[in-house]
Amino acid sequence: MLLSALRRGAIRATCVVAGGVSLSEEYPVFTREEISKRDGKRGATWVTYKDQVYDITEFVNAHPGGAQKIKLAAGASVEPFWRIYKQHLDPAVDIQEILAPMRVGTLDASDFAKETTMTKEKKEDDPYRDEPERHPALTVHTAEPCNAEAPVAMLGDPYITPTELWYVRNHHPVPLDDGDAHKFSVTTDNGAEVSLSVADLKKNYSKTTVTATMQCSGNRRGHMNQYGKTSGTAWGSGAASTAEWAGVPLRVVVADLLFKDKSAPLTAAKALGAKHVIFEAKDDMQASVPVEKALSELGDCMLAYEMNGQPIPRDHGGPLRAIVPGYAGVRNVKWVQRVKLSSDEAEGAWQRGMNYKAMPSHWRTKQDLQGVDFSALPSIHELPVQCAFSSPAPGDALPIDEDSVEVKGWALGSAGRSIHRVEVSADGGETWVEADLEEGLDQPYGRAWAWTTWSAEVPVGEGPVELVARAHDLGGGAMPRTPADVWNIRGLNNNSWPVARLERSNNV
Amino acid sequence: MLLSALRRGAIRATCVVAGGVSLSEEYPVFTREEISKRDGKRGATWVTYKDQVYDITEFVNAHPGGAQKIKLAAGASVEPFWRIYKQHLDPAVDIQEILAPMRVGTLDASDFAKETTMTKEKKEDDPYRDEPERHPALTVHTAEPCNAEAPVAMLGDPYITPTELWYVRNHHPVPLDDGDAHKFSVTTDNGAEVSLSVADLKKNYSKTTVTATMQCSGNRRGHMNQYGKTSGTAWGSGAASTAEWAGVPLRVVVADLLFKDKSAPLTAAKALGAKHVIFEAKDDMQASVPVEKALSELGDCMLAYEMNGQPIPRDHGGPLRAIVPGYAGVRNVKWVQRVKLSSDEAEGAWQRGMNYKAMPSHWRTKQDLQGVDFSALPSIHELPVQCAFSSPAPGDALPIDEDSVEVKGWALGSAGRSIHRVEVSADGGETWVEADLEEGLDQPYGRAWAWTTWSAEVPVGEGPVELVARAHDLGGGAMPRTPADVWNIRGLNNNSWPVARLERSNNV
Repeated sequence: MLLSALRRGAIRATCVVAGGVSLSEEYPVFTREEISKRDGKRGATWVTYKDQVYDITEFVNAHPGGAQKIKLAAGASVEPFWRIYKQHLDPAVDIQEILAPMRVGTLDASDFAKETTMTKEKKEDDPYRDEPERHPALTVHTAEPCNAEAPVAMLGDPYITPTELWYVRNHHPVPLDDGDAHKFSVTTDNGAEVSLSVADLKKNYSKTTVTATMQCSGNRRGHMNQYGKTSGTAWGSGAASTAEWAGVPLRVVVADLLFKDKSAPLTAAKALGAKHVIFEAKDDMQASVPVEKALSELGDCMLAYEMNGQPIPRDHGGPLRAIVPGYAGVRNVKWVQRVKLSSDEAEGAWQRGMNYKAMPSHWRTKQDLQGVDFSALPSIHELPVQCAFSSPAPGDALPIDEDSVEVKGWALGSAGRSIHRVEVSADGGETWVEADLEEGLDQPYGRAWAWTTWSAEVPVGEGPVELVARAHDLGGGAMPRTPADVWNIRGLNNNSWPVARLERSNNV
Repeated sequence: MLLSALRRGAIRATCVVAGGVSLSEEYPVFTREEISKRDGKRGATWVTYKDQVYDITEFVNAHPGGAQKIKLAAGASVEPFWRIYKQHLDPAVDIQEILAPMRVGTLDASDFAKETTMTKEKKEDDPYRDEPERHPALTVHTAEPCNAEAPVAMLGDPYITPTELWYVRNHHPVPLDDGDAHKFSVTTDNGAEVSLSVADLKKNYSKTTVTATMQCSGNRRGHMNQYGKTSGTAWGSGAASTAEWAGVPLRVVVADLLFKDKSAPLTAAKALGAKHVIFEAKDDMQASVPVEKALSELGDCMLAYEMNGQPIPRDHGGPLRAIVPGYAGVRNVKWVQRVKLSSDEAEGAWQRGMNYKAMPSHWRTKQDLQGVDFSALPSIHELPVQCAFSSPAPGDALPIDEDSVEVKGWALGSAGRSIHRVEVSADGGETWVEADLEEGLDQPYGRAWAWTTWSAEVPVGEGPVELVARAHDLGGGAMPRTPADVWNIRGLNNNSWPVARLERSNNV
């Protein structure tokens, strides 16, 4: 199909003037509203690039980066995606040569002007007036505060999730960023307090990095709802992303600022009576992690100021974020302004309320929660072994005569464990194919904080195809069969087998 | 039933002469063979105490320690059990008053003499001539080398498994024990070697303790065979036991003997290029664990010389055993004579062969294993979340009119994680009751190395009762539904839901 598209291009390229500049007057004009209806769901797939409109229907399956990825731009502009996949803009690639044959129109001039100069008008008293711009490929569950899911098709490929595509999980408006001038303090219960700035952190300590996959403990809650209604954002599998974080190990900073003997900060902290390290954020959120995780030599906790080689953007906790690899996203506190060694857990909803608590399956209704002392329940910390599909997506069409399907995804062991294997079934779990593990296999023992990507070519019979997958980690961790096996009313830690039913179709 | 037994006792006690000494000539004489047929499986349950024979059929369900426990002595002597449950021998309890009414006979004098003086005759060239004596309540899978299962009904009650009842997993004849004179060495790849004795260990370092449940990675392999045949000993759930170990933290010994800076032995070992700590045993077995586990401040690895307050018996690794909490039993090497910091894993079958390797589920036959490089597969280290029933046992009778059943058992989180909850179902997993967690809840965060015991009163409907249970740990670890979900040809790490079908009966 790529060949035929290129061949068509060779013919129709004669319509394009020298230098690749299009003559918009040759094409009919479409509004954005008209274009957005050509989203490939029922019929043609159109995209725009600058003010040019393209019919990519036949090109979708020939897209070298995969059909799933190009479909993200269906009915919209490719430009936000090309900012991430910069090969499209490589001067060595004559993108116009590929695009020109598919051109069908020109974007309405006033829509084009609006899109290129768009700024959302916000009133001065709107607490959300300073929200950062977000990538259109995110699936927004709530806009204010922003809870938005990464595009599932892009998770794991590339291995490091481009920062713009990272899932966003905010509780409040995003604080303004004062960069290196941002001050934070490190304190203890008995009154020790040292203040420093991000600039001090950069100047006084060597920079180290940790590559970690972060996951909201509510990731895949939406899949749990299919078994029984839960409360909270109905995330798909896109509340997970991977970054390379850079900053200073928490234990190094704590030892340096608080203890004479710098060699054993965990022992020193315990001697002080500290049991938890609390992170307080600029948006008044706070959460804590046990000192064993925060300060041990194997916990890899970090005060991070860079994400994927750049200062951490505001949406992801810039200028300073606590990184707690292997723990629920909520413990990786953003906009850190205080690090507190404490005999108690953090105060507040994110630590003591019902939102991040492990609960039994028989609490099924709000009535069951009446009278429960949530502060007495254990907080969610480590997440269980997990895996998800990046492609195909549930509901995708599979040609009627296809006898196998290529399946891709990611898997993450529990709390730093390596992935042992991933298995994929096309018949709902009757027969299994072992997937090829790809990137992420070379992580250190017990500290495999980031996902391992995988792919499998899975034979399919005639009739309906129900893909399921299961990952096993090196601690013997296995994923339970159905959401019923792990259901809880808050919809946390759903690591049941992911499911994707495909539609057989003549028209693929 | 207790009352009726006691009432009968009050009447029949008139047959017993003052002072509780029985007159054996009043009773018929039975051989051990005759008595052993009265094991309660089809009809009466008899036991012996000294040379006296008792019919305890009606007392079984009234036994204050539970029916499961007294049944262990059915057809045999109660004395090995009373050595463990010493309350039977408490002078304040007149045990004869309870026993006398149930007396039905006298043990044949020559059988009695044989049992009290029994020593197995062994030839001088028999490598198994010096095996220790073992408790009759163990279920022996193979006698030489000894592979014997703890009595499932006694696991968790008492919380610490009495040493005599511990499961035994040996690969060879048990080495002789030279006690405190036993020498061992600590070495590195670059030629450092320090030798010391157990006496030196006791003298030079403070004694610390760790309470840990040990489990063979083949525990519950027998249950996996019900789905598909595996290779290896078909253990039930009794290849698990709990002890309080005492000795010296491995990191303390290693730091003291090998490193100038004693504060960070893991860092120092890594600087030497060490990636594993190998334990070599006196029986030529060896196994290793990653340095991260062996030497970290949270791994709690130990060179132990005491088990439950006594020198470690020969069967369990005395005089010196490596304790690696949360890891498969095989890594807790017995009879340690060398501790080796190494850039490589241990040599030999227990580390590099197929016996303790994680394998995919689609290797189903010996053919599938042909040509596999087992040394390239990952070794089993940490074990997954697990639970088991201690009572009732599969096949136990349940009175036809009973509308609930009391279920007891133990649960163990993966690699030091606390148990969050245990759920029990009497209808194969349709409806669940949350169990009460009993002992083991107060273990430190991330270091809950020993099991948590539980009990539940589970309502049952009419008809067949299929008990299943599932435990969840605080790392989100869940147990898979069926052996199919975790099956592997070596039958390792089976943590699928345990199952016990009960028989409805009129005669309970």
